[in-house]
Amino acid sequence: MTIQPIYTPGQSITVGAPATVANLVCGFDILGLALNAPQDILTLTISDEPGIRIRHTDDYQLPVAPSANVAGAALLALLETLPVPVGFDLVAHKHIKPGSGLGSSAASAAGAVVAANLLLNDYFSKPDLVRFAMHGEKLASGVKHADNITPCIYGGVTLIRSVFPLDIVPLDAPPLFVTVVHPQIEVRTADARQILKQQLPLRDAIRQWGNIAGLVAGLLQKDYALIGRSLEDVIIEPVRSILIPGFDAVKQQCIEAGALGGGISGSGPSVFMLSEAEHTAGQLERIMQEVYAKIGLPCKTYVTTLNHHGVTVIPPSSI
Amino acid sequence: MTIQPIYTPGQSITVGAPATVANLVCGFDILGLALNAPQDILTLTISDEPGIRIRHTDDYQLPVAPSANVAGAALLALLETLPVPVGFDLVAHKHIKPGSGLGSSAASAAGAVVAANLLLNDYFSKPDLVRFAMHGEKLASGVKHADNITPCIYGGVTLIRSVFPLDIVPLDAPPLFVTVVHPQIEVRTADARQILKQQLPLRDAIRQWGNIAGLVAGLLQKDYALIGRSLEDVIIEPVRSILIPGFDAVKQQCIEAGALGGGISGSGPSVFMLSEAEHTAGQLERIMQEVYAKIGLPCKTYVTTLNHHGVTVIPPSSI
Repeated sequence: MTIQPIYTPGQSITVGAPATVANLVCGFDILGLALNAPQDILTLTISDEPGIRIRHTDDYQLPVAPSANVAGAALLALLETLPVPVGFDLVAHKHIKPGSGLGSSAASAAGAVVAANLLLNDYFSKPDLVRFAMHGEKLASGVKHADNITPCIYGGVTLIRSVFPLDIVPLDAPPLFVTVVHPQIEVRTADARQILKQQLPLRDAIRQWGNIAGLVAGLLQKDYALIGRSLEDVIIEPVRSILIPGFDAVKQQCIEAGALGGGISGSGPSVFMLSEAEHTAGQLERIMQEVYAKIGLPCKTYVTTLNHHGVTVIPPSSI
Repeated sequence: MTIQPIYTPGQSITVGAPATVANLVCGFDILGLALNAPQDILTLTISDEPGIRIRHTDDYQLPVAPSANVAGAALLALLETLPVPVGFDLVAHKHIKPGSGLGSSAASAAGAVVAANLLLNDYFSKPDLVRFAMHGEKLASGVKHADNITPCIYGGVTLIRSVFPLDIVPLDAPPLFVTVVHPQIEVRTADARQILKQQLPLRDAIRQWGNIAGLVAGLLQKDYALIGRSLEDVIIEPVRSILIPGFDAVKQQCIEAGALGGGISGSGPSVFMLSEAEHTAGQLERIMQEVYAKIGLPCKTYVTTLNHHGVTVIPPSSI
């Protein structure tokens, strides 16, 4: 017997879907974290009229045909497994710029399916929602990766031990400040993937898995010094950072100024730095602004914190 | 000003130095654990007569010249940094067979320097002792590795995030039963190192670091199911297990019988399996014995537990 979803046609919900940092330094493809800013705002309405209708109120001119839209693709995947012919109207206002490396497509996809699930009275599990949202990532980058979607849905720092089968491990991390700089250049995910070396020396792999083990232990044991020592990537960063002007200067100066460490957010071009203290996080922002002012490259910066809750409902009163 | 060590010439101490499992499945070169059995028994006496004198009461016919003996090499490294010209007399009775893959050389080296440090009133730190004992490993295998020595000295499960500089992270693991089988063949560490591929595909490395992250999280969060899912090695085991007759049968049958997982201990030939329940651990021992009886290869088995304290003093009354 199929359990029927409970919903009220015409009901609306508005959610905030946070930016995320994937490829967390040594945790390429497996570790991500959610930020408290920026976030996309999505309003979803459930109806008895089948199909998906999308409207964007931002200026990014994203496609609105459901199968060509990241949120649409995720909702289509969700609808396929739903035993009733409902439909959705989505109004999206994106604040996370597509191509920033801050999980813009994941926020659209995750925000849409979390909102849909709330309207369906929690019909699906969180891993189900991750699977639906991965269809959006597939549309955006050609790869069904989950390391932005998972922290976006779960909040905090999440480990994707395996994608097939999906094995998600939320890691109970201590409070962290995150400073992000988004230099206004474009790095295509496909390009960033292409320049990776497909073979690597065993000794580098061993060093990397020492670091990833140290990072997980540091997060779970709330050991900031260990987190700092473990934030080292000897495999991906040396290759990809070449695509990001100013990367070496930002990283070196931020670490000298007290950052625990950091690296490329996703496949770039955004760069993030973690710190234990708020005043350090603010100082890192000024360093980032100075580095890009010197180069003459416009940039946008954020000083924010680790987001522990993921996609959240925004009550109508505060919209 | 150099701080002088406090000691009493003629004082003796006896310690038990436990067997250890290095290369803990996906944690090649970085994760190890200590066992409660077998263990070597070392009696060390400090004297004003410089130099090191070694006597073995076991039948392994190991060299007794200090610079050719693993414990001797470790003690020589310790003496070099000691500002007073003391000497040591060591009587060693090894129960951990050299070449078993159970950290026999590490037990000699770690046991000797821990005993020496107790006679020197804790003059050195634990990381100092690891560094001294690494000279013994260098003598035994040509490589200054620390992944047997560290759990031998610290107990429990230990992460070596980095050897140079030395960065040790003790991991607070839940109780575990360990079943070990030592098939009576020889696998030389040097041979086991030589057959490793020096390059590996990025996708395998990513899978491995997902597993290592999952294993560390599973241990710290006391999540036995996650430990089990993460005990997978896609890089080293497929190559090295070829050197160990019966490996595939032992592993498959043990996992079917409820083992969390396991693999090659160190560079073999011993194979270990972890379990949550004592009765499972006993059942695994019978499976191992049956597999080797079928092959016609003699073997020795141990059913033991994770050792949480490392090298320990044995009071004179119980010797």
